[in-house]
Amino acid sequence: MKQSQLFAKTLKNPPNDEFSQGARLLTQAGFIQKLSSGIYSFLPLGFLVLKKIENIIREEMNAVGGQELLMPALHPKEIWEESNRWSAADYLYKLKDRQKKEYVLGATHEEIIVDIARKRIFSYRDLPLALYQIQTKFRDELRAKSGLLRTKEFSMKDLYSFHADEKDFRKYYEKVKEAYFKIFTRCGFKDIIVAEAAGGIFTKEYTHEFQIPTEAGEDNIVFCPKGDYAKNREISDKTKGDKCPVCGARLEEKRAIEAGNIFPLGTRFSEPMRLNFIDKNGEKKLVIMGCYGIGLGRVLGAAAEIHHDEKGVIWPEEIAPFKFYQDLRGRGIEALYDEREGKTAGEKFADADLIGIPYRMVVSEKTLQRSSVEIKKRDKQNINLVKIKDIKNFKF
Amino acid sequence: MKQSQLFAKTLKNPPNDEFSQGARLLTQAGFIQKLSSGIYSFLPLGFLVLKKIENIIREEMNAVGGQELLMPALHPKEIWEESNRWSAADYLYKLKDRQKKEYVLGATHEEIIVDIARKRIFSYRDLPLALYQIQTKFRDELRAKSGLLRTKEFSMKDLYSFHADEKDFRKYYEKVKEAYFKIFTRCGFKDIIVAEAAGGIFTKEYTHEFQIPTEAGEDNIVFCPKGDYAKNREISDKTKGDKCPVCGARLEEKRAIEAGNIFPLGTRFSEPMRLNFIDKNGEKKLVIMGCYGIGLGRVLGAAAEIHHDEKGVIWPEEIAPFKFYQDLRGRGIEALYDEREGKTAGEKFADADLIGIPYRMVVSEKTLQRSSVEIKKRDKQNINLVKIKDIKNFKF
Repeated sequence: MKQSQLFAKTLKNPPNDEFSQGARLLTQAGFIQKLSSGIYSFLPLGFLVLKKIENIIREEMNAVGGQELLMPALHPKEIWEESNRWSAADYLYKLKDRQKKEYVLGATHEEIIVDIARKRIFSYRDLPLALYQIQTKFRDELRAKSGLLRTKEFSMKDLYSFHADEKDFRKYYEKVKEAYFKIFTRCGFKDIIVAEAAGGIFTKEYTHEFQIPTEAGEDNIVFCPKGDYAKNREISDKTKGDKCPVCGARLEEKRAIEAGNIFPLGTRFSEPMRLNFIDKNGEKKLVIMGCYGIGLGRVLGAAAEIHHDEKGVIWPEEIAPFKFYQDLRGRGIEALYDEREGKTAGEKFADADLIGIPYRMVVSEKTLQRSSVEIKKRDKQNINLVKIKDIKNFKF
Repeated sequence: MKQSQLFAKTLKNPPNDEFSQGARLLTQAGFIQKLSSGIYSFLPLGFLVLKKIENIIREEMNAVGGQELLMPALHPKEIWEESNRWSAADYLYKLKDRQKKEYVLGATHEEIIVDIARKRIFSYRDLPLALYQIQTKFRDELRAKSGLLRTKEFSMKDLYSFHADEKDFRKYYEKVKEAYFKIFTRCGFKDIIVAEAAGGIFTKEYTHEFQIPTEAGEDNIVFCPKGDYAKNREISDKTKGDKCPVCGARLEEKRAIEAGNIFPLGTRFSEPMRLNFIDKNGEKKLVIMGCYGIGLGRVLGAAAEIHHDEKGVIWPEEIAPFKFYQDLRGRGIEALYDEREGKTAGEKFADADLIGIPYRMVVSEKTLQRSSVEIKKRDKQNINLVKIKDIKNFKF
C-alpha cells in the first residue's frame, strides 16, 4: 500500500455539535468522530492514545494481582433478576431477540463475574482472587453532551475482588486505591481528589470516586484543602466555606470529572447469587467482594479538557500518540507540527522554508521502519537520520 | 495478594450442555464459560490465547498497511437506512432507548466506516486507505449450538479498504488474501481452503471464505484436490465426484469451519452513502471498497476442535497460553501437567514423587517474575532456576 501517512486527517473547522472544548479539539484534529449523541469512534490517532491508557491500566492492575479476562456485553434477563437489578436502573438498554428472549446490555458485570466465581470458587484456598477486564459498557444516558465525558457506549476497566473476610478486603481496597493514584498520575493528572460518594445500584455503603478537578466536569466536590475531607456534593451535608469536620479548615468546592470509582460490595451480590466458600474451619460463608472501575474514554476526554491550548491538545507524555512534539516542547523548543491536509511533503517543505523555520523534522513510513526521523537545518543541504530514542540528545 | 496461581480452575466433569468436543474441553479446562446460549466469557487462560490470536492478526494487518481504530457497537437506525440494510437481515439485534430512538447492534461496520471516510476522504491523494478494528459484533443466531463456532456475540477483526479504481482494489485484495494465509498458518492451521461463496447482505458479487476442514464445521465445501476449484456447496453447481471444470480431477467435499472471509464491495456502500473523491483529472468518482473479516473466538474454537486428544487441547505453539508443555512434547518428552484443584504445591510434589515422575518443573508467580521456572530431578536435592527462553536447551 502506498499510504505513507497516518490517517490523521484534520477538519478545517471544529464541529458545531460539540459543547466541550476537549471534544471539539479531538474531533477537529482527527482523534475521534461522533456517530450519534454519546456514541464515538476512535480514529487511528485517538486509538493510539486509548491503547496507551489501556496499557497503563493493565500494568497497574497486573501489579495488584489482577488477572485479565473478557466477559460478554449481552446479559440474559434471568441473571439480572437473580441480583434484583433488572428493574433497578432506568439507564439500562434492554432488548429482545427474535425468539423473544430478553437481554440487558452490560452497564457493569457483577452478575456475570459472580456467576463465573460461583462455578469455580469453593474453598478458602481459592481466595483472595482479583479478576478484571477492559471491555465495552452501555448506558442509556439522557445527558450525553460532554463529548467523551458522558457517553452511551464506553470502554471500561472493571476489576472485581473476592475475599474470605472483611479485613482482607479492606487491605486490598487500599492497595487498589494506591494503584489508581499511580494510573491517574501516569496519565498526566496532577490534581486528584478521592471523594466519598453514594453507591448507586451497587451498594448501600459509601464508595470512593477519583475526581479530576476541571470546569468541564459534571460533578461537584466539597473538599478540605488539607486533604481531610472530600465528598461528592450529592451526599455532603457541608458546603463551601463550612469548617472541615476533621481539621477545621475552610472547605472548598470544585467542579470535577469522575475518572474512576471503587466500591465495597460486601455480600450485596454473593448473598442473592449464593457465592459461598468453605472456610478453614469447614464452615460455609459468603464471599466478600469489591469492584473497581475506570472509564478509558473518560480519561482520554479529561486529559484533552485539562491539557490544551488554542492550537490543540497538549498530551501528557505517557499517553501522547507521538512524543517528538512533547520532547521538543519539554526542552523549551517551540515546534510547529505541520499536519495540514491536501499538501504534499514538497509543498510543506517549501512553506516551512518560506516562513523560515530553522529546523525541519520529517517522520515518514520509511524513517519509522528504521525507528528514525530526518532532521535538516534550514540553511544546510545535508539531512541527518536520527534514531527516535536519540532525539532527546540531538544537538540542535 | 497471595494468589500465586493463575485462575485456571478446572471442572471435575465436562459441561452437559455443549455439543462440540472443543467447547466441552475448553469449558472443563477453564478457558471459557458459557453465560447463555451462544454467549461466552473468556476466562484468564482463554483470554491469553485470544490475545495471542489478536496479536498475530494485528501484526499481519499492520504489515499490509492497515491502521487500527475502534468503532462503536450501537448504530443509530438512520445510518443503516442510508445503505438500505436496516431491514435486510433478520439476525440483527435492534433496540430502542428511553427516548424511543432506535439502534441496531453492529453485526458489521460498513456504514460506520463509510461515514468516517466520507468526512475525511476527498481526493485521490487520500487513497488508498485501509482501516481495521478488533471489536465486538452481535448476531441474533438461531443455531448457536457449536460452542465458539457460532455465537451471538464475538470479537472480530474487520478491515475495510478504500481505492480509487478496481485495479488498485484487486491488487490489495490479493495482498490481504496472502496475509490471511499467514494468519491462519501462524495460528496452527495447515489445511486451509479458500472457497467462493455468496455475498449475503454485503454484495451481489462472489466473495471468498477461508475454510478450515473439520467434521465439527457447519459449512460444506466442494473442492478440487489440486486446488483449481473450491466453492461453498450453497453456491456450487457441482458436487463430490464431479469433474473439476479447470483440470478435470474428481471434486471432493468436506465439512469445514469458516474462519475468515473477504468481500469485494465495489460501490455497494459508497454509492448510497455518497463516498466520493476527486480523481487526478478533477472528476468526481465513487470510492471502490473491500472488507475483510476474521472471527477471533471462532479461530480459537476451531483450534480446539482440530487440535486435541482425550486429555485436552493441544495448542499450536504460537497461540498456546503457556509453551512449556508444548516445548516438552515437541521434543518427544512425555509431560504431566498437574493442574488439580484444591491441592497444595506440597501435596502435588508428594504425589509426583510417589508416582515417580523423574523431573519436576515448577512455575510460580515468583519464578515468573524472574522469567524462569524451577526444574528439579527426582533423585537430587538441588533445584535449577532456568530461564523460560532456555528451557528448550535444558539438558534433562
